Amino acid sequence: MAKIAIMGFGTVGSGVLEVCRRNAASIARRAGEPVEVKYILDVRDFSNHPDAALFVKSIDTILADPEVKVVVETIGGTKFAYPFVKACLESGRSVCTSNKEMVATYGAELLALARANNAAFLFEASVGGGTPIITPMHQCLAANHISAIQGIVNGTTNFMLTKMKRENMGFDAALKIAQDLGYAETKDPGDDVDGRDACRKIAILASLACGHHVYPAAIPTRGIRDITVADIAAAEGLHCAIKLIAWYHEGENGAPMAAGVEPMLVPAENQLAGVDDVFNAVLMQGDMLGDVVFYGKGAGKLPTASAVVADVVDALKEGSAVHDSLFWQPAPPPEGQLTDAAAHAWYLRVRGVPAAVLPAAAGQGRLVFDKDGECAYLIEKATAAEVDAAEQKLQVLGGQVALRLKMLA
Amino acid sequence: MAKIAIMGFGTVGSGVLEVCRRNAASIARRAGEPVEVKYILDVRDFSNHPDAALFVKSIDTILADPEVKVVVETIGGTKFAYPFVKACLESGRSVCTSNKEMVATYGAELLALARANNAAFLFEASVGGGTPIITPMHQCLAANHISAIQGIVNGTTNFMLTKMKRENMGFDAALKIAQDLGYAETKDPGDDVDGRDACRKIAILASLACGHHVYPAAIPTRGIRDITVADIAAAEGLHCAIKLIAWYHEGENGAPMAAGVEPMLVPAENQLAGVDDVFNAVLMQGDMLGDVVFYGKGAGKLPTASAVVADVVDALKEGSAVHDSLFWQPAPPPEGQLTDAAAHAWYLRVRGVPAAVLPAAAGQGRLVFDKDGECAYLIEKATAAEVDAAEQKLQVLGGQVALRLKMLA
Repeated sequence: MAKIAIMGFGTVGSGVLEVCRRNAASIARRAGEPVEVKYILDVRDFSNHPDAALFVKSIDTILADPEVKVVVETIGGTKFAYPFVKACLESGRSVCTSNKEMVATYGAELLALARANNAAFLFEASVGGGTPIITPMHQCLAANHISAIQGIVNGTTNFMLTKMKRENMGFDAALKIAQDLGYAETKDPGDDVDGRDACRKIAILASLACGHHVYPAAIPTRGIRDITVADIAAAEGLHCAIKLIAWYHEGENGAPMAAGVEPMLVPAENQLAGVDDVFNAVLMQGDMLGDVVFYGKGAGKLPTASAVVADVVDALKEGSAVHDSLFWQPAPPPEGQLTDAAAHAWYLRVRGVPAAVLPAAAGQGRLVFDKDGECAYLIEKATAAEVDAAEQKLQVLGGQVALRLKMLA
Repeated sequence: MAKIAIMGFGTVGSGVLEVCRRNAASIARRAGEPVEVKYILDVRDFSNHPDAALFVKSIDTILADPEVKVVVETIGGTKFAYPFVKACLESGRSVCTSNKEMVATYGAELLALARANNAAFLFEASVGGGTPIITPMHQCLAANHISAIQGIVNGTTNFMLTKMKRENMGFDAALKIAQDLGYAETKDPGDDVDGRDACRKIAILASLACGHHVYPAAIPTRGIRDITVADIAAAEGLHCAIKLIAWYHEGENGAPMAAGVEPMLVPAENQLAGVDDVFNAVLMQGDMLGDVVFYGKGAGKLPTASAVVADVVDALKEGSAVHDSLFWQPAPPPEGQLTDAAAHAWYLRVRGVPAAVLPAAAGQGRLVFDKDGECAYLIEKATAAEVDAAEQKLQVLGGQVALRLKMLA
């Protein structure tokens, strides 16, 4: 009988308890022994909960019990989660977490701490919820060099963009529905709609791909607030979908690596264009393998919990042995943000200037629409620096760029 | 320095050598030590090969060298591969293989042998080529019960069906192109076009899902020879694609499990409908997770080799420890074949009877086309047994069912 503890009994934490019980037999078969939740750490009052006897208020209870070999962290945030996880790893206990903020912020440090203490630090559920992404990435792609990652990794914004497209609905209305359904937070939906959640996830994947810590703060991040119904219709006319894309690509010819989170035009033939609703999908390019895509429902209590429990099984079976390749090195934070030096096609929506000035200001391209005092223009090929220059030229002419979107290559 | 041997220097075997060398640094980092190919077993003459010194003609050379810890089997077939792999496992060496025929036929026995000898038996490359499917299935889904699998697992037939659809081309012409491109064998393309290759792959996935050996011979298997351009056009009119689907679902309410390989109508909204060309995709339903899809280019020398090498890294790192969950029990072959008791929508193409008789003979449905002496009919809902009965009724009336396709639910 393997004993585990759960820290944080919110949505995912309670899901972990439920998964452990509902699939107890198959988990026992795979782990080699039955898995029992011995403690649940939560400061709130659960004295009327059917499992009230399991609840503890201090992490010291868990740290004092040598029977507990694996600890699940589902508190979220970093204030409590980070010191608690550190304490668990320092005591030689393996930790499995769904906490992307903590992994994106302290991943390199916690991985090194796990290694030093012969414990495992696993976080499959931090990207893609229940969909296996991190494990196949680091393990099955062991013989591949991963040169690029493109992902739809935030289910809430993908749901909203799908609503906007299918029901001809504006951002505010789509956000309201996402909030009513519990997909977006009511108080501050910014983590989702401003791209911060996606930024943490691509920071984790980029760190794994390039082998050193990539800081979320260094990743240029832009959300979907500026997308209008007109943009989505224009994208469809261009045989594209607008998706919030989290991307990474390695530096070529000595250039530094780059990463970003931004709404992009995704051509219909790209596998990501058809990923709708709350689904997530991550496309990776391996040098030997070509493109692979991992696709599944991202968030949700039981999907995410099932990924955490799979990590628990893994940690129980292997301890630290299996995860030498799930690792990246510490690195100092870079000065400023990562930049994208590549050339792309760009969609610009512009106010305050006549369409006729666009070719001269923004370079070769074509007019997408000209209505209601705005025009949209598709630049054939330009770097971000060139588009910055075009924006300045348009400002001089009294114009304003309301939206700019790269096209995904 | 870890030493390995390659048995069989064909396409995949030579790819393994190439991947080991081209990505030597990242493989060493992930395996914890450099990986060197010490022997290549092949009966053919490679005396002019740049690596001629590595070639040996007898497996005894490999078995006599205690330095070799992991052996790659890329001979194919079972005549030599099976006894050689047995000998390697009995000697305590781990084996990594891309040989689906051997795994589908002797999987349970070889897995038990590996376990008894504290070795690993790994076969990620046997399904989906380089695309990670087996590892995420058995490992990340450890906390899920897998109730159903639907896959496009044969790239050759998927390429042919895509050609037929896009270029309005018949089976024979599409086969010719597939042969010219080296996707299908010239002498006997039956393994691909008659579904035997797909059958072996779903036998492996079904064995993993249900936990006991599922014999390929027990899986009803039908290929794509009967599909015409008219069928593909009719399917498009029904907002479907015709795909060769390998499927498994567990038995419900005490019914036995079922599996099959057959061309099916795949509705456009299903993730598999858009999987074209030589790409593979496997959709799995987990009870906690919902649907996940793994997508990538199936075959090919380097993709497949990179999956074998990832298994080698895994075997070197963990030995047998990691793979207790990659296992299924032996089982006696069933009497007869597995049957599908579920009700589906069915597409029937019929000759020799007027369309007017179809509703009475085949039950509620609608006429899809009636031309050139054939008519196609879409039965709303029926079991296989009910469609058998309909076929008999039509025969009595002088008719003949030229094609029947289930619609994927």
